[in-house]
Amino acid sequence: MSLTKLSENKVAGGWHQRFSHQSSVNNCEMTFAIFLPPQIAQGQKVPVLYWLSGLTCTDENFMQKAGAFKKAAELGICIVAPDTSPRGNDVADDKEGAYDFGLGAGFYLNAIQAPFAQHYQMYSYITQELPELIEAEFNVSDKRSISGHSMGGHGALTIGLKNPTSYQSISAFSPIVNPTQVPWGHKAFSGYLGEDKTTWAEYDSCELLKQASSIQPIMIEQGLADQFLHNQLTPQALLDIAAEKGFTLNYTAHEGYDHSYFFISSFIDKHLAFHAGYLV
Amino acid sequence: MSLTKLSENKVAGGWHQRFSHQSSVNNCEMTFAIFLPPQIAQGQKVPVLYWLSGLTCTDENFMQKAGAFKKAAELGICIVAPDTSPRGNDVADDKEGAYDFGLGAGFYLNAIQAPFAQHYQMYSYITQELPELIEAEFNVSDKRSISGHSMGGHGALTIGLKNPTSYQSISAFSPIVNPTQVPWGHKAFSGYLGEDKTTWAEYDSCELLKQASSIQPIMIEQGLADQFLHNQLTPQALLDIAAEKGFTLNYTAHEGYDHSYFFISSFIDKHLAFHAGYLV
Repeated sequence: MSLTKLSENKVAGGWHQRFSHQSSVNNCEMTFAIFLPPQIAQGQKVPVLYWLSGLTCTDENFMQKAGAFKKAAELGICIVAPDTSPRGNDVADDKEGAYDFGLGAGFYLNAIQAPFAQHYQMYSYITQELPELIEAEFNVSDKRSISGHSMGGHGALTIGLKNPTSYQSISAFSPIVNPTQVPWGHKAFSGYLGEDKTTWAEYDSCELLKQASSIQPIMIEQGLADQFLHNQLTPQALLDIAAEKGFTLNYTAHEGYDHSYFFISSFIDKHLAFHAGYLV
Repeated sequence: MSLTKLSENKVAGGWHQRFSHQSSVNNCEMTFAIFLPPQIAQGQKVPVLYWLSGLTCTDENFMQKAGAFKKAAELGICIVAPDTSPRGNDVADDKEGAYDFGLGAGFYLNAIQAPFAQHYQMYSYITQELPELIEAEFNVSDKRSISGHSMGGHGALTIGLKNPTSYQSISAFSPIVNPTQVPWGHKAFSGYLGEDKTTWAEYDSCELLKQASSIQPIMIEQGLADQFLHNQLTPQALLDIAAEKGFTLNYTAHEGYDHSYFFISSFIDKHLAFHAGYLV
């Protein structure tokens, strides 16, 4: 596989770089961004935190707005931010170009419905193709953790829970925890997976937690002024299952905070320190 | 004067808010953003750092990308980020809509040439109308410092040097220090001020420093991989005058850093701590 460097910027003593590459699983060109902490230039293999962004985002939102680099540089963590869907002129999109399905809204699953199955294989991309590429092309270790926001919080929780040996720790900001039960999830899962709901449970963190016998360390941050809290995110559903099963989720709700990157930037250092504890 | 609140987001324990208001000096509606640190909610009057952004920016770039809020919250500094020019359908723009003149490129001066003089009164807006509004509407003190990036670094240096009793300290990232001698300045000053170059010197920090008998504390940060370093920013011109006059500028050049917000975010905490030393 070959990478094309799109841009690079020195930041916090390390480097932010953007690359494109041909994705075999998504069958299109994909773009990702990476933060290389200064330890890499000193010859040290560093662990990787995968960050999955939310609806409408690209690889750029987190890198420009989260304010994560100082802490990641201090802790020696590489951060990889993939795009949120396949892209390109021949990639199917929502019929009306809606923000919550199709381009920018891949939901980190493998689509099985036409015409989406041809390109929307984000689950395989995030769990297999991308980490293989990152570990081949950069001086990083095979220690991985995963985090994300909103749709990306759903991605981090489901991917982490389904792959307990691949990710040391999981965290999420304002995640969609129970997509089979909320409008965003209904729309996306109907379109990508079809009406057979047995396939939906594979991508629902509440359903996955019900089946789990043990889990990695999990941290969740939620703003209480989040406009999507009650109708799309529903974190209580996950907390209830965790309580029933005797799992401890490190969940914190914050008065006044909303769904934006202003919220993420306020608590990203806490999440980086959390992951660092399991990545060494 | 009345303010219309456009949005607000809790961040780092404080609040980011955006407002519009009718500007009498610019003769149009203006938008600004403000960061209110948590000390304000505790009844404390806090000092204000005015941040002036660069070409093409609005009030939003710094607030979304600089990563300044944690340190500003810790230090108890309010940050105000105005827009970079007047805006609106009746505000004259560059004939070809160029990025470096007209809308988004007010250069923090008072235009005297038609048709720009009707709205482009950014110098009076930043030095008089806006601080009066901020000090009337928010629980802030009258202690002010000023900083900015690129065109906004030019703004911070010239406004600070021209108003030594109004601003306790001055800082700049990648500033245009000698606009009378570089292409961006030639184009802007010709258009806003006309061909009589005696008026240009009033808005050139090199010329102002030559005339100064004393200066406030000044800090300047410059990336050495900045694509505009040699043909537009020319910091050495200011350093040479400071050396001749016996003034110390706290100037640091950084290998590898470019002109972007990735650079600003890497060193903004240093500048906030610098200003805090003079704002208490």
